[in-house]
Amino acid sequence: MENLFWLGLAGAIIALAFAYLQAKKVLRFSEGTELMQKIASSIRKGANAYLKRQYSTVAKIFIIVFVILLLLAFSNMLDNWFIPFAFLTGGIWSGLAGFVGMKIATSANARTANAAHESLNRGLNVAFSSGAVMGFTVVGLGLLDVSIWFHILKYVAHFEGAQIAQTMVMFGMGASFMALFGRVGGGIFTKAADVGADLVGKVEAGIPEDDPRNPATIADNVGDNVGDVAGMGADLYESYVGSILATFALGAAAYSAEGLTWNAMLLPVLIAVVGVVCSILGSFLIRTKEDATQKSLLATLRKGTYTAAILAAVAAAPLTYFVLGAENMGVYAAILAGLIAGCAIGYFTEYYTSDTYKPTQKLADSTETGAATTIIGGISLGMMSTAAPIVIIGIAIIVSFLAAGGSLTTGGADYDLLFSKGLYGIGIAAVGMLSTLGITLATDAYGPVADNAGGIAEMSGLGEEVRNRTDALDSLGNTTAATGKGFAIGSAALTALALLVSYVDVVKGRLEHLDLSITNPAVLVGLFVGAMLTFIFAALTMSGVQRAAQSIVVEVRRQFREISGIMEGKVDPDYASCVDLCTKGALHEMVLPSLLAIVVPVVTGLILGAEAVVGLLGGVTVTGFVVAVFMSNAGGAWDNAKKYIEAGHHGGKGSECHKAAVIGDTVGDPFKDTSGPSLNILIKLCSTVSIVFSGLITTIHLF
Amino acid sequence: MENLFWLGLAGAIIALAFAYLQAKKVLRFSEGTELMQKIASSIRKGANAYLKRQYSTVAKIFIIVFVILLLLAFSNMLDNWFIPFAFLTGGIWSGLAGFVGMKIATSANARTANAAHESLNRGLNVAFSSGAVMGFTVVGLGLLDVSIWFHILKYVAHFEGAQIAQTMVMFGMGASFMALFGRVGGGIFTKAADVGADLVGKVEAGIPEDDPRNPATIADNVGDNVGDVAGMGADLYESYVGSILATFALGAAAYSAEGLTWNAMLLPVLIAVVGVVCSILGSFLIRTKEDATQKSLLATLRKGTYTAAILAAVAAAPLTYFVLGAENMGVYAAILAGLIAGCAIGYFTEYYTSDTYKPTQKLADSTETGAATTIIGGISLGMMSTAAPIVIIGIAIIVSFLAAGGSLTTGGADYDLLFSKGLYGIGIAAVGMLSTLGITLATDAYGPVADNAGGIAEMSGLGEEVRNRTDALDSLGNTTAATGKGFAIGSAALTALALLVSYVDVVKGRLEHLDLSITNPAVLVGLFVGAMLTFIFAALTMSGVQRAAQSIVVEVRRQFREISGIMEGKVDPDYASCVDLCTKGALHEMVLPSLLAIVVPVVTGLILGAEAVVGLLGGVTVTGFVVAVFMSNAGGAWDNAKKYIEAGHHGGKGSECHKAAVIGDTVGDPFKDTSGPSLNILIKLCSTVSIVFSGLITTIHLF
Repeated sequence: MENLFWLGLAGAIIALAFAYLQAKKVLRFSEGTELMQKIASSIRKGANAYLKRQYSTVAKIFIIVFVILLLLAFSNMLDNWFIPFAFLTGGIWSGLAGFVGMKIATSANARTANAAHESLNRGLNVAFSSGAVMGFTVVGLGLLDVSIWFHILKYVAHFEGAQIAQTMVMFGMGASFMALFGRVGGGIFTKAADVGADLVGKVEAGIPEDDPRNPATIADNVGDNVGDVAGMGADLYESYVGSILATFALGAAAYSAEGLTWNAMLLPVLIAVVGVVCSILGSFLIRTKEDATQKSLLATLRKGTYTAAILAAVAAAPLTYFVLGAENMGVYAAILAGLIAGCAIGYFTEYYTSDTYKPTQKLADSTETGAATTIIGGISLGMMSTAAPIVIIGIAIIVSFLAAGGSLTTGGADYDLLFSKGLYGIGIAAVGMLSTLGITLATDAYGPVADNAGGIAEMSGLGEEVRNRTDALDSLGNTTAATGKGFAIGSAALTALALLVSYVDVVKGRLEHLDLSITNPAVLVGLFVGAMLTFIFAALTMSGVQRAAQSIVVEVRRQFREISGIMEGKVDPDYASCVDLCTKGALHEMVLPSLLAIVVPVVTGLILGAEAVVGLLGGVTVTGFVVAVFMSNAGGAWDNAKKYIEAGHHGGKGSECHKAAVIGDTVGDPFKDTSGPSLNILIKLCSTVSIVFSGLITTIHLF
Repeated sequence: MENLFWLGLAGAIIALAFAYLQAKKVLRFSEGTELMQKIASSIRKGANAYLKRQYSTVAKIFIIVFVILLLLAFSNMLDNWFIPFAFLTGGIWSGLAGFVGMKIATSANARTANAAHESLNRGLNVAFSSGAVMGFTVVGLGLLDVSIWFHILKYVAHFEGAQIAQTMVMFGMGASFMALFGRVGGGIFTKAADVGADLVGKVEAGIPEDDPRNPATIADNVGDNVGDVAGMGADLYESYVGSILATFALGAAAYSAEGLTWNAMLLPVLIAVVGVVCSILGSFLIRTKEDATQKSLLATLRKGTYTAAILAAVAAAPLTYFVLGAENMGVYAAILAGLIAGCAIGYFTEYYTSDTYKPTQKLADSTETGAATTIIGGISLGMMSTAAPIVIIGIAIIVSFLAAGGSLTTGGADYDLLFSKGLYGIGIAAVGMLSTLGITLATDAYGPVADNAGGIAEMSGLGEEVRNRTDALDSLGNTTAATGKGFAIGSAALTALALLVSYVDVVKGRLEHLDLSITNPAVLVGLFVGAMLTFIFAALTMSGVQRAAQSIVVEVRRQFREISGIMEGKVDPDYASCVDLCTKGALHEMVLPSLLAIVVPVVTGLILGAEAVVGLLGGVTVTGFVVAVFMSNAGGAWDNAKKYIEAGHHGGKGSECHKAAVIGDTVGDPFKDTSGPSLNILIKLCSTVSIVFSGLITTIHLF
């Protein structure tokens, strides 16, 4: 079986080639009028400038961590010398995935606006294709990274299967770390610009959203690209790679006794490859007639993603049979459990956040009694919405564990072996969930492009009809993004759990006795610390947005006051200064929360030992998951309750209800676009950090 | 040593006698003018009516659970037949503690207002004494319950020490269950009335708080009594009893090998008795000169509580030496760790919520940019404020565990014994923290009395000077309440952990194999379910407040519209209808969240087995603690930021900043007075429920 790993490389090339073709297709479209080109170029410049500075800031931190890792390797506290270098490549690939996504998104926004000028369908076409570039780049680079390192370890370093698995599980940290910076920095940038632009522009000066007179409007559009596109790309790159690597390690542990180490490692790679092919097939289905309505567009998007998922589900059966044999077909059920869980979480995300369902409509009702009840309503909606994803993830965990061979009845001769087989099931469920990432990410990533296109249409005065079309695309994007979020958060939880288990395996190899039961005070305190980390992280990212937004408010007010002629539309405001302020603010605010994710697990380990770290990982995974769902859904519901009112309910735009809804939406902005999604990465990064530093923690600790 | 348990009975009688004397003292004061008497009587009537209906609703549920427990006992799934009856007595005592507290509070409010008419000091005197009635009643009834059952089991049933301990640890459920209903029902009542009164009265009609023209104003004052007084009394009764009973069980497990079972069980009782005496001594110090300022009043309150704490700390040393011998003096360090942790959490609660410190002042600054930034600021403040309590509790856990003999180095011959000794340290730390509950609860419970006194002063037109004095008392109450909250939440966490460990001990006796490590999927899923329970519970209690408040809003609007002459002050509004609506709303909304605390652990156990329940308890304890701190502190900070602005900062009353602050305060109301404090009880109730139903869960489960 070990000779079939080249298929991973082939899958990577297929994905990247498809992304390239889609990019060429996008670039064939026209960017529209001179004004549109100018605006698009400003956004592009801003986004490039931000990303450049973000990467150079992050590069310094990467070098420091790289040196620390070298020192650890030198002190024999790392398993081998590859880890520091894999840390770098993970970071670079992850950054590259984000960069490519942002590059194409900033090239596609004006093109989408211009295409929407012609028809809704053409607009969708450009936007979706640019999303596909991002989706398949992420998948392609992920498979490439995994495959290249696999072949280096196998054919250059001549490692055994289990050794490769144990080494490669440490390779996720670079990608996680880069992703966290991307998500947090981008998230702070985008929401600082958004909140700042709204507070002064919409509320104080009374000019509409995306009005060219607002000095923060370019920054706002830049933010969509650096936050929602580049950040999300890096996030899912990391889940994708992390789930495969964790499954490598779990597979090697579970199947070595049967001599199926290579097979167990091959399966996640092949599922990913099959997923690439199915995603490409699915994306061919996304083409509609010229007279398409919003409803038919949604239907066609759904047809594409669901077809891909069903094809992948079908193909996984013979694949599992071929790789692991008839006696291990339970693993197939685990794959299915992952796929279904992703879709189910997506459905409930939509249920709680879309204004076609009761929860968001009720939230809109609560604006009748003012802002306070709107906030209380949104918070309780968000908290309530955690139930369904937790039940789904719980069922997915139990089903994939049991199906893959695990048993919940403690004790018995084969207990340990069956147990590790079950854990492999949890890992492979995550892989299954992410197998069609190419297309699900495409439907997710096209949203910000449509959002940007709307901004450009508004700023370049393309007229109401075009704006309506881009709004329709944007709103469609919100719906599909809900599904995307379901996959992102569900896979983050499963991947983090798989990594947690891998950490325990690594530590078990180093320590004789381990008491990981919850009654062990070290584990208990670790649980508390993990929960604390979630809350501090959320607090820091939110207050980071607030501080950065505050500086935008001051700057926009200054420009309105000092530059005469802005409000009359005679003089252009100084867009660049707002972009610059957002950049500075985001870079300044992203460092502390991101470093916490490394420092807290390591310090906890150095004080209380490796067992406390297990508690911490459990605590941060569970609370991080719950808080992420809570914040994302509360924010999404506030956003859509506002849109629901703007569509004419409860007095429509300008009513008292609308004002209350705007307050809800502003609170929800950092909830859903900064803190919530960053938590997805936090939980994975904590696990990978703990794995990499396990040598240090098991050697040196205070108690 | 077993002959010294009568000291517990003696301590109970001392506490109750002191409470009785304080009550007599309060009742000697005059209730003031006829109008004041009339208002006080309305509040009393409303509170009585509510409590009567609450208790009769709860009684029905108690009977159902009682029958279920009888059936379990009949099926041999309970250890013995005492448990159903102990369930009833726990509920009755807990309800009685709440009832007595409320009774004296509703008798003291007008007396406090009238005394404040004469001087600030006399006002404090009445209010504090009524708080002391509550504090010492809770402590006295708690000790009485423990002592009576102990003697029944020992001298009537002739149980052995370990058997008594294992039986009595199941006795906490009744108290917890009653406390949860009290906290949730009372919390919903008080905030529904408060929010409803504010939304229509203050915001829409523009009349001041506590204005007699507001139909909801009596309901608002009733709410202070049924929520803050009766609910809190039941809450701390339950922590007090729970910590002693859990320590019984842990002590019997840890010290039976040395033949010190009775001693280990006696120690918590004696510490409690010493705490009663020290609290009484401390409360004698609370007397000031007639020309006292607010600052000197705070100093005298602090002198009383700190003296009591120091006396108790000093007395605990010879006590520990006498009971457990020189070789176990580490237990004394555990007691100290608990006491210090309580004070430290109290300090940080004050730091984050008092307007004399930066965080709340900064929150007031954020009102400058409107309601949205006020909300974001409060939420991030609340989340950030979880760090200090978690670090403190973490240190307290580790210190008390290590000091009492535990070791974090897994493995070794004595590991299990040392481990259980360490766990006893955690239990005794909780007992230490609560030992001076008599006086700390007194300083906490007097706050609502002062609040009520302010309302009565306003409604009966006692003039600005009196109102200023009651406001000073109220604001003083907010500061001391912060310390009280520190003890409530810290002790809840430690008690819940001690109960969790007791649950594991109980289950270990029934099952051969237990895998409680976090990597066990059952435990993991349990962790997720526990976190979910916290969030759903918070959501339900918050939306309960919102729905109940909504009905008050409708009713107040109706009265303003239909009853002419209210606004001119010619006709009294129909206060009773608002009280009635709040009662109905609270009783209706309290049932579902309260039942969840029983149903979710039992159903989880029936599906996934006893190990999943351990995960659930860990999850609910950790997230419940964090969310409770978050919500309480965010709410407290919003409240005080509003008061800070009302004191003249940022434009003072009526400014835009004030409006934003009022929105923050309204959001904070259910945070800090309904959901936050109820979570304290939830985490303990889940543990006691799991212990009682452990027989069922270990016998029947799906997987």
